Amino acid sequence: MTGTVYLVPNLLGAVPPPRVLPQRTQDIARTIVHWIVETPKPARAFLKVLDTARPIASLDLRTFPAVPTPADLALLLAPARDGRDIGLLTDAGCPGVADPGATVIAAAHHAGIRVVPLVGPSAVLLALMASGMNGQRFAFHGYLPVKPDARTSALRALEADSRAHRRTELFIETPYRNVAMLEAITQSLKPATLLCVAADLTLETEIIERRAVSAWRDHAIGRFARRPALFVVEAG
Amino acid sequence: MTGTVYLVPNLLGAVPPPRVLPQRTQDIARTIVHWIVETPKPARAFLKVLDTARPIASLDLRTFPAVPTPADLALLLAPARDGRDIGLLTDAGCPGVADPGATVIAAAHHAGIRVVPLVGPSAVLLALMASGMNGQRFAFHGYLPVKPDARTSALRALEADSRAHRRTELFIETPYRNVAMLEAITQSLKPATLLCVAADLTLETEIIERRAVSAWRDHAIGRFARRPALFVVEAG
Repeated sequence: MTGTVYLVPNLLGAVPPPRVLPQRTQDIARTIVHWIVETPKPARAFLKVLDTARPIASLDLRTFPAVPTPADLALLLAPARDGRDIGLLTDAGCPGVADPGATVIAAAHHAGIRVVPLVGPSAVLLALMASGMNGQRFAFHGYLPVKPDARTSALRALEADSRAHRRTELFIETPYRNVAMLEAITQSLKPATLLCVAADLTLETEIIERRAVSAWRDHAIGRFARRPALFVVEAG
Repeated sequence: MTGTVYLVPNLLGAVPPPRVLPQRTQDIARTIVHWIVETPKPARAFLKVLDTARPIASLDLRTFPAVPTPADLALLLAPARDGRDIGLLTDAGCPGVADPGATVIAAAHHAGIRVVPLVGPSAVLLALMASGMNGQRFAFHGYLPVKPDARTSALRALEADSRAHRRTELFIETPYRNVAMLEAITQSLKPATLLCVAADLTLETEIIERRAVSAWRDHAIGRFARRPALFVVEAG
């Protein structure tokens, strides 16, 4: 019997686990001994707040490289081949969604190891839900280019795609560039295009605002500075 | 003070709520009196299993029309304007994501009513996580065309898009057409293209399988018949 690879969603910030994790997710994560993690420090912080069954120092924490070799993956997945369950954990949110970890999951499938995704918070999903935009057709693009000209072109291309495919477009930005991104959006996109910005999702400081680009021009945007945020756009 | 519109994820099948809903989601949903729901019967079944604070018969359940008028929306959101919280609930999964409800959410934003998305199960998100495919760039397409020729064209277009944009493509199918869809995929797509099928997500009967299209041809696919499923494709 091989073990299972559980995909364990991490918190999106410092909140009590029952706020965002079902009891089952917590129960499974509390008893896993073998972990494959993005970064040890946030992984240990998560396991501490979860109140694991065993002392954290006695758990087997291995980090996965950004580009793991087949040998790396075989070693990481060895406990599952020996019949033990493994937890895959990233620094925030869901492994493999706007987050690393997909190569480990792919290798598990390839090795015939069962993969079980657990329920927890995903900023992409929560932002899409809260946007009230088209959730029957949507696309997530990760980060857009940083240089102003390339960013403007990318934003206009997304707006054109949204119109052509009647689709919602989502992307993220490094928090310290949120205000520059908001300025670029209000300067580049059409007045009737809808923009929803969702920041600090699931935290006490959560802000979710949605309005047409023309109306965003009349609102101060400094309050989004340096907060993890999702941008959701739909051509009006 | 206006109330808040809480977006309450529903179960994906008959499972105990702690399996997929955080305590906070359950606590908030248990005390909400005013509900906007997709269909009354599954809404009542959900509220019953949640064990609401008040008898279900005393709750205010209103259904939202497929295409609500501004007057419908004003009426649905009236409790929030009177300072009361509202729960928005669909028949399964997350309101507004591969599910109706977006027009209600949009109207809440428009009326200046706070929108709070709660954490819960989303088949789209769980399937993407579990696929081990590219979660930095992905697109969800809802249902593909039903007629064989149009379906084949749509599948090939998705495969070409996946290759061109280095993106994961997700779609759904009515459960009784799953096997026909699987046959169409294995007949239409390139042998090296990756396909993950995730059925009965979060249920005891959950199945998640991922392999190249060429390898799917050697596997019986009847076991996916009549189960709610997500299809996840990445050009190999």
